[in-house]
Amino acid sequence: MPKISREDILVPADVMPEVREVYLDNMMAATRGTGHLMLFACDQKIEHLNKDFYGEGIDISDSDPEHLFKIGSQGICGVLAGQRGLIARYAPDYPDINYLVKMNSKTNLVKTAQCDPYSPQLYDLEAVLAMREAGCNIVGIGYTIYLGSEYEPQMMAEAGELIAEAHAEGLIVVLWIYPRGEAVTDEKAADLIAGAAGTALCLGSDFVKVNPPSPADGATSAELLKQASDASGRCGLVCAGGSATDATTFLTQLHEQIHIGGAVGNATGRNIHQRSLDEAVRLTKAISAITFGDYDVQEALDVFEGKEDFSL
Amino acid sequence: MPKISREDILVPADVMPEVREVYLDNMMAATRGTGHLMLFACDQKIEHLNKDFYGEGIDISDSDPEHLFKIGSQGICGVLAGQRGLIARYAPDYPDINYLVKMNSKTNLVKTAQCDPYSPQLYDLEAVLAMREAGCNIVGIGYTIYLGSEYEPQMMAEAGELIAEAHAEGLIVVLWIYPRGEAVTDEKAADLIAGAAGTALCLGSDFVKVNPPSPADGATSAELLKQASDASGRCGLVCAGGSATDATTFLTQLHEQIHIGGAVGNATGRNIHQRSLDEAVRLTKAISAITFGDYDVQEALDVFEGKEDFSL
Amino acid sequence: MPKISREDILVPADVMPEVREVYLDNMMAATRGTGHLMLFACDQKIEHLNKDFYGEGIDISDSDPEHLFKIGSQGICGVLAGQRGLIARYAPDYPDINYLVKMNSKTNLVKTAQCDPYSPQLYDLEAVLAMREAGCNIVGIGYTIYLGSEYEPQMMAEAGELIAEAHAEGLIVVLWIYPRGEAVTDEKAADLIAGAAGTALCLGSDFVKVNPPSPADGATSAELLKQASDASGRCGLVCAGGSATDATTFLTQLHEQIHIGGAVGNATGRNIHQRSLDEAVRLTKAISAITFGDYDVQEALDVFEGKEDFSL
Amino acid sequence: MPKISREDILVPADVMPEVREVYLDNMMAATRGTGHLMLFACDQKIEHLNKDFYGEGIDISDSDPEHLFKIGSQGICGVLAGQRGLIARYAPDYPDINYLVKMNSKTNLVKTAQCDPYSPQLYDLEAVLAMREAGCNIVGIGYTIYLGSEYEPQMMAEAGELIAEAHAEGLIVVLWIYPRGEAVTDEKAADLIAGAAGTALCLGSDFVKVNPPSPADGATSAELLKQASDASGRCGLVCAGGSATDATTFLTQLHEQIHIGGAVGNATGRNIHQRSLDEAVRLTKAISAITFGDYDVQEALDVFEGKEDFSL
Amino acid sequence: MPKISREDILVPADVMPEVREVYLDNMMAATRGTGHLMLFACDQKIEHLNKDFYGEGIDISDSDPEHLFKIGSQGICGVLAGQRGLIARYAPDYPDINYLVKMNSKTNLVKTAQCDPYSPQLYDLEAVLAMREAGCNIVGIGYTIYLGSEYEPQMMAEAGELIAEAHAEGLIVVLWIYPRGEAVTDEKAADLIAGAAGTALCLGSDFVKVNPPSPADGATSAELLKQASDASGRCGLVCAGGSATDATTFLTQLHEQIHIGGAVGNATGRNIHQRSLDEAVRLTKAISAITFGDYDVQEALDVFEGKEDFSL
Repeated sequence: MPKISREDILVPADVMPEVREVYLDNMMAATRGTGHLMLFACDQKIEHLNKDFYGEGIDISDSDPEHLFKIGSQGICGVLAGQRGLIARYAPDYPDINYLVKMNSKTNLVKTAQCDPYSPQLYDLEAVLAMREAGCNIVGIGYTIYLGSEYEPQMMAEAGELIAEAHAEGLIVVLWIYPRGEAVTDEKAADLIAGAAGTALCLGSDFVKVNPPSPADGATSAELLKQASDASGRCGLVCAGGSATDATTFLTQLHEQIHIGGAVGNATGRNIHQRSLDEAVRLTKAISAITFGDYDVQEALDVFEGKEDFSL
Repeated sequence: MPKISREDILVPADVMPEVREVYLDNMMAATRGTGHLMLFACDQKIEHLNKDFYGEGIDISDSDPEHLFKIGSQGICGVLAGQRGLIARYAPDYPDINYLVKMNSKTNLVKTAQCDPYSPQLYDLEAVLAMREAGCNIVGIGYTIYLGSEYEPQMMAEAGELIAEAHAEGLIVVLWIYPRGEAVTDEKAADLIAGAAGTALCLGSDFVKVNPPSPADGATSAELLKQASDASGRCGLVCAGGSATDATTFLTQLHEQIHIGGAVGNATGRNIHQRSLDEAVRLTKAISAITFGDYDVQEALDVFEGKEDFSL
Repeated sequence: MPKISREDILVPADVMPEVREVYLDNMMAATRGTGHLMLFACDQKIEHLNKDFYGEGIDISDSDPEHLFKIGSQGICGVLAGQRGLIARYAPDYPDINYLVKMNSKTNLVKTAQCDPYSPQLYDLEAVLAMREAGCNIVGIGYTIYLGSEYEPQMMAEAGELIAEAHAEGLIVVLWIYPRGEAVTDEKAADLIAGAAGTALCLGSDFVKVNPPSPADGATSAELLKQASDASGRCGLVCAGGSATDATTFLTQLHEQIHIGGAVGNATGRNIHQRSLDEAVRLTKAISAITFGDYDVQEALDVFEGKEDFSL
Repeated sequence: MPKISREDILVPADVMPEVREVYLDNMMAATRGTGHLMLFACDQKIEHLNKDFYGEGIDISDSDPEHLFKIGSQGICGVLAGQRGLIARYAPDYPDINYLVKMNSKTNLVKTAQCDPYSPQLYDLEAVLAMREAGCNIVGIGYTIYLGSEYEPQMMAEAGELIAEAHAEGLIVVLWIYPRGEAVTDEKAADLIAGAAGTALCLGSDFVKVNPPSPADGATSAELLKQASDASGRCGLVCAGGSATDATTFLTQLHEQIHIGGAVGNATGRNIHQRSLDEAVRLTKAISAITFGDYDVQEALDVFEGKEDFSL
Repeated sequence: MPKISREDILVPADVMPEVREVYLDNMMAATRGTGHLMLFACDQKIEHLNKDFYGEGIDISDSDPEHLFKIGSQGICGVLAGQRGLIARYAPDYPDINYLVKMNSKTNLVKTAQCDPYSPQLYDLEAVLAMREAGCNIVGIGYTIYLGSEYEPQMMAEAGELIAEAHAEGLIVVLWIYPRGEAVTDEKAADLIAGAAGTALCLGSDFVKVNPPSPADGATSAELLKQASDASGRCGLVCAGGSATDATTFLTQLHEQIHIGGAVGNATGRNIHQRSLDEAVRLTKAISAITFGDYDVQEALDVFEGKEDFSL
């Protein structure tokens, strides 16, 4: 995965000329100069409440929210994605992390059986721009859409408007798109995941985070993912890391998503932060070795196990 | 179909004097100087998700979103209609296409049986004007109304306001109007299609896209369409191309819609982009030959089959 | 009905001093200098879709929307009321008509049994003012409220705000108020019509259009209408013309509404435009003869039948 | 009830310094320099439609809306409360009345059994301020909250914002608070009325209008009202006059509400305007004799019966 | 609990540089220079209507709203939290209290069984800033979120935006977060309380008020609270004081919440204001002795009983 130059980046037409260089700076920073994305997902304190951060199988260090920032600072990530307030509270002590502000969030208390999911926009972009202006290293924003929810219209509209505003200010955008709701019978069907990817493209996002499709008809998840990465066109596709699995399985999946499925990276949360600081830091490096450095699985495992280092 | 001159265009009273020339430019560009419309519909990646772009009977080239822009660039279209983000991503490499920004969209996941359809506005006009200002060749906007939906009020209001804003800035407007919802028992009844056409006129749209009515009482679809084209008055009526059919049938229908039904053109998506690039390009030319060049069906088929060329 | 002078007009306190003359101009124009109103209702292409304009018993000329403007131009009307877009499209060729922009509209597809009626505001007043500024002869606005609908709050709020804004800009206002919804058992009860009339007064409208009450307890519709015209106080009351009836009946009703019921005019659509141009023009003159000229029914019938002319 | 001086008025902290004198002027005017309130409620033409103004037992003069203004002008009232449009239409001829603009209203058509009550804000404060600026003698605004309705949030939010805006402009505020809705089993329970009174205080209102509590446990309504007048603290409490009763009963209740219940006045509509002009004028004077002049019931009855006069 | 200095305070990145000193002033004032919070909750006149202020077991002095301000003035509190209007009415006579404006409130009339809870924002921040500008000693704002309600999205969005706006103006923020609604089966489960605490952190609040968790599995409430105070990270956690209990129990719980549970203070209403002024004042001092002065329970009880004094 050779480094790219600024000239290789296709700047969309909604980035205003006066912030073109800002957009390029942000894209180069977020992708570490590769065009690929390694997103450390730190929005689950609202999304999953405290169950992702405390309990059996979770390292005790994860009970302190600062753990996330220590990992972000000592590990190798493209961006650390979290809600505006979380970032505001810790960024002054971790000024070098590339922050991506998650613009919406919901808890998991109301289940889909009760009510189709709606994750509301929590603040306007002005608040994010003010933080950036005040010196916080914000490179972009994120937003989650539950496609097929009865509240799809609200989320599509909020995302659609935010992307236009963010690009006009030189920020990059990542959409999380998950089909979910009474109308959705198979959230991980390959063609539906591809539809989500195409939707992100049409909304103008720079990257889209989707769940990897379920294997079907003898095809693996990574093979089926190719439909989605095709559909997303010039919008880079990354897969959600999902719940914790062992590192070998996890890194193998990631490698296949990129090299078979056409993904340009990944977006992982629990699998990283539920580990001790040292182990988590090594996992971010192993992920980045594959994503940014084009390592194979065994090399990446060596990085994870500390036998080898990876740096940019 | 002789060329028209700028003086032949009736400029509505809500086009502000200072953008009168811009409006005339856009109308002349979109109609290729004929007053007629050939709209290449590229909004289905959200509307129909990925099923229109990948699968049996669809050329593999359609799985890459850039396919749409190659057709738009190499073929002959009046406008390419797509969501703002899609256009933003590819327009820099295809600067000569006339773009029409689709302002709202929904997926097809929530069916009418679950919930009446609502397609939300995805961004405000400012975002579109900014792109135009930054050099993107945007000539107009589009919006879909599901008449008879319980959400008709929301869509009527969004469309009503957008049309006023767009005309005030010199942009042309196309409404897609489809009767749909629990209250609608026959979506393609001729008088209902005519009602949709009249609604578009009253909202101030320049063009309205409707489904062709069902044949009834011994009258053909094209004959019944006349009621709608009468009802739309000074708002030009075009028919949706619908699902893929063979070229002969398709071009025959188009010819009848114009010459019997009073349509001023057509709006076609799948029937074009599901084909290979070469075939798709030839189909746009065949359509344009009828719409812009007043060819008969056989001449247009010759264009489609490459036996004859059509250019403007 | 002698002519009034500008000094006879009671200018409400929400007309700002700097537009007082504009308001007086508009009121004198709309009432042809009489204080009475003859409103030609041309908003049904949305309200009733195409069934009012095409079919058995309807003159074929009514299938062309321009028919409305020909009548408005050649006949004698106080104002022609229609949606903003309709007016924008034809007003450049019919600059002398007094236009009243209908600010909200709904189709008749969703019936009250399915959902209480809501007719949404379709554009803000800015759009109307811009058209006026650009030279379009707009003298006022209109808005429909369905009193007793579960959506009464939305319509009351939209109307309440619009009236304030319109008066502040010197425009006159007509409210259409119809009791309708699950809660309304008798839409034409005299006391309910009177309640509607009083509501219009409290909202600040200049005129209110109501349905004539049903005859009851031995009293005629016109006699019962007096309760409503009393209740509307300084807000002038006019009756809806309703569905087509023969001219004699129609003109007799109108005369009684004014001379017995205390109405200051009428608001008629179908009864006019479903006729041929010549007949429709004569009917507008007959109506205006009663409304503006204080003709009796027989004299007005002579005007309708072309035996006599009426001009202002 | 001795006159108060401007220095006795506690100006709340949300009255901006630059309008402090305006607020004091308005408070002195509305309370006739006593700190007490006599509110003539003229908002029922929407709230109760025409049944309060025409029918058996109602003087025929009440069928003309101007009746309200004649009473307000010839009688003695603190403020005349009505919707913005009603005031706009008559205030030019009755410039000396102190007007209080009712900011929201609903009809009584949709009953609580069908839908919890919501009375929507009908115009923004700008419209009211413009009228004041243009010379209309507006001293304050009013708003109704149905506490315990499922729409309580909307009304609380509209009231909360309006009070802040009104005070910032020097206007006084009266809240009407009535517990009503599916959740409310006893609308006139003393502790609930007290809760309503406390709510008005917390929202920042200057006065609150409540229904007098039902007698209970051997205590009279006036005795139980004391809990509410305590709870409202520095927000003055007045009772609704309710439906028409004979003058003796009415004035006795009023006297007890003030002298036993701690009220600072009353808010009466029907009981006044359903009478002939002369009788209505005398009743306003009798009420004001108790409220502003500290008359006892017999003295006030003498005023009502014309045996004695009351002036300020 | 030694005093802290301004340098010890971690200023979040959304406090704009030009108001950094204002924020520090507010934080030092609200925490009495300790970083700890003693919040006197005075928002129940809406939340609980009058039942918290009048009745058996409640000192009669509590029926007068001014009681709250006397306590706030004579006792020792960090902040007095109440609705904007309540503060506006009394603050001019109690200028030295640190006020925290509660931005939303609802009554308890509509129960969760009828409808999930929604507490609406009652005024925008502009209204609060204007009061501060006019001299009112406002140091921060508060907002309640019912996590797991079907209206969670509305409250999350209102809180999220308000926090950004408040910090940008140098105000501190306290969130009240209570899990409640059809979806919530155990409102006081320790992991859910911890989820609420983490949510407050992610939204950017300075402090979060939660209910103490229910004891479970042999662990005390205070022990289980530790999970929540960990989860809230740099957002200080305080517990609601709950319904009245005897002072010994109450102060013991408070001490344990701080010293075992990791709380940084408390937020108490009824337990204070339902007492006589003298007793209430002593209780605030006892609470502050623990919160600000690091007293043990016995020492605090001595303060409460007047055997010892506590001052800052």
